[in-house]
Amino acid sequence: MVALRDMNVSLLDWEARCILESLSRELERLRAVSENVDDEDAATDAGNDYLELVGLKERFESEAKAVFGDQITNFSRDSIWPVR
Amino acid sequence: MVALRDMNVSLLDWEARCILESLSRELERLRAVSENVDDEDAATDAGNDYLELVGLKERFESEAKAVFGDQITNFSRDSIWPVR
Repeated sequence: MVALRDMNVSLLDWEARCILESLSRELERLRAVSENVDDEDAATDAGNDYLELVGLKERFESEAKAVFGDQITNFSRDSIWPVR
Repeated sequence: MVALRDMNVSLLDWEARCILESLSRELERLRAVSENVDDEDAATDAGNDYLELVGLKERFESEAKAVFGDQITNFSRDSIWPVR
């Protein structure tokens, strides 16, 4: 059996939020592709990719909420980025 | 002084690659907005957001390469997702 390697990354509040927002936008993109592309294979691929990514996003979101609270999913412009 | 809280997340190879690809697409989107939007404020916001996100992506990519090697940035369809 081959042990799967993993990386451990430490993320601040705004970094976790950026990643969550990026994952959400990628999910929207994949859903749009799966629903609108004429090529059946491409649509199926996008649909499968969507299902993989949605699981990752759910786990990431759950872990982020445990640390930062529910506000971590607030993507409104005023709160996403660090104060400049 | 307020200590900044952070989260520690453990990611497998394909999960790190998905996040990297999602961050790359979000960067492309922000660059397109900053270059093409007529509203000057919106273009400036997108440009600033781009600069914040590019730093996060560079750190994440560097840490991912240290664990998984350079192949982690290969986003070709055959290798991104786990074998189904």
